Amino acid sequence: MIQTLIEKIKKTGAPIVVGLDPMLNYLPKHIQKKAFAEYGETLEGAAEAVWQYNKGLVDAVYDLIPAVKPQIAMYEQFGLEGIRAFKRTVDYCKEKGLVVIGDIKRGDIGSTAIAYAEGHLGKVSVGQNAFYGFGEDFVTVNPYLGSDGVKPFIEVCQKEKKGLFILVKTSNPSSGEFQDRLVDGRPLYELVGEKVAEWGSECMGEDYSYIGAVVGATYPEQGKILRKIMPKTFILVPGYGAQGGKGADLVHFFNEDGLGAIVNSSRGIIAAYKQEKYASYGEEGYADAARAAVLDMKEDIAGALAAR
Amino acid sequence: MIQTLIEKIKKTGAPIVVGLDPMLNYLPKHIQKKAFAEYGETLEGAAEAVWQYNKGLVDAVYDLIPAVKPQIAMYEQFGLEGIRAFKRTVDYCKEKGLVVIGDIKRGDIGSTAIAYAEGHLGKVSVGQNAFYGFGEDFVTVNPYLGSDGVKPFIEVCQKEKKGLFILVKTSNPSSGEFQDRLVDGRPLYELVGEKVAEWGSECMGEDYSYIGAVVGATYPEQGKILRKIMPKTFILVPGYGAQGGKGADLVHFFNEDGLGAIVNSSRGIIAAYKQEKYASYGEEGYADAARAAVLDMKEDIAGALAAR
Repeated sequence: MIQTLIEKIKKTGAPIVVGLDPMLNYLPKHIQKKAFAEYGETLEGAAEAVWQYNKGLVDAVYDLIPAVKPQIAMYEQFGLEGIRAFKRTVDYCKEKGLVVIGDIKRGDIGSTAIAYAEGHLGKVSVGQNAFYGFGEDFVTVNPYLGSDGVKPFIEVCQKEKKGLFILVKTSNPSSGEFQDRLVDGRPLYELVGEKVAEWGSECMGEDYSYIGAVVGATYPEQGKILRKIMPKTFILVPGYGAQGGKGADLVHFFNEDGLGAIVNSSRGIIAAYKQEKYASYGEEGYADAARAAVLDMKEDIAGALAAR
Repeated sequence: MIQTLIEKIKKTGAPIVVGLDPMLNYLPKHIQKKAFAEYGETLEGAAEAVWQYNKGLVDAVYDLIPAVKPQIAMYEQFGLEGIRAFKRTVDYCKEKGLVVIGDIKRGDIGSTAIAYAEGHLGKVSVGQNAFYGFGEDFVTVNPYLGSDGVKPFIEVCQKEKKGLFILVKTSNPSSGEFQDRLVDGRPLYELVGEKVAEWGSECMGEDYSYIGAVVGATYPEQGKILRKIMPKTFILVPGYGAQGGKGADLVHFFNEDGLGAIVNSSRGIIAAYKQEKYASYGEEGYADAARAAVLDMKEDIAGALAAR
């Protein structure tokens, strides 16, 4: 799957993933109104609105980008109905040829980790049959539990040709509380990065491993160091746009081949119509605003990479 | 909710939580056969079998214990149908008066963490209405992202009178890879424990905080130290029984008031009928075997606490 991702990045020229993180207050009123008229102001109504919003976004941008990253929390908050909207979104994105990165940040051990991995990436056996639960292509994983928490995911990836992005240095302000603490004179995130490189070394595609890392755009200096520690690791970079990261901050996350990183933007794309810059599209034009924002982001990153 | 948990522990005399982690291979054949006859060897059939198995277990043990801890991965592996069985299990356990600890080990930041917290502990707003998504009483949380990942959960707990158990030192063999690394001469899990105590200090019930910790039974020496670092913190202790922890290992997790810890057993209870000790119950008697195993576990812990 890492090869598919890389090919799609090359084809689109856009090392970009759109975060499908639908907060209800991002959703244009006409979408909410229609869903609530049909299903009431209920969990079912919210889930329907989220799904219609996502469908409009995907239809508007799928030809420009290699991948999407639905954040499962934004669906899980609506309970079972929300999870149904997550599944519909994953299925639809795959139909449209997009690589789907499930931002699930799961982390557990042994048989529990296998259950997560089979449910999200692989197949679960039921009697003589086997079924995909959610069927994403990649998922994000939390490393706090160590190898016991990661290896079961890796095993499923090896079998299913899927991939992971393991949290190394997250984009949030307090990520340093534990991740930056010095161990033998070096921050913990470097040790985690080394482990990711080690786990990934046995999971190689052609030039890159399918065991990737998450490093926030908001920490460009750390990104530069981690790029060197994990030369064969694809880095998923959140924090662009709304969280403060800019194109120029991103260059060190990429290798000299122009690959090795994929940058996420969520709010900055899917709620672009709320920004002054794209206000002329109006609420009804939210999907076109998202398309314009993707094109601008592509140009920003390409410009920064060309200028380095 | 911490007061409710403490009262139930006192009333039952059992600082025990039963882990409802239904692997399909734990399920007696008669349960699988019936569910598959009705729904086929499908995700729906698996989910129905899991639910019937859980119902039998809960009916057999609910009067002996204060709480259950369903591990959501074991449901999530069956996709949407599995999640439905999770919700049914949570609802049924609450009907039976049990405290429900959702073992979800989520961890994310800002609005995403709020979404998880509202979905699992609190209510999500949809227009003029608000709904519980899953409605657990406590959830487990991963601290790798720092305060940004924990505080949104705490806010929802304060509003809803719910609680957390934050991973500090996990029970698995490789938990030391990152958690034991020395920071200023002290293992990382001690720093995490200090943070848990700090976060919890503003979230007090009567004697204990509703911000708890997870510390594995398999690390009794670390438990002893963490007990001192977090004197007001309730500790959820996994790893008893099948993972190797014994009653005697547990005494240091408790305070002198005999409180402060709740010990989880999953496989050792719910699949007790597979052990030689309880084999006479047979597969059909799996629920009675579970009841016997709970009584034995209660005696083991009480004996160890009396002997200290």
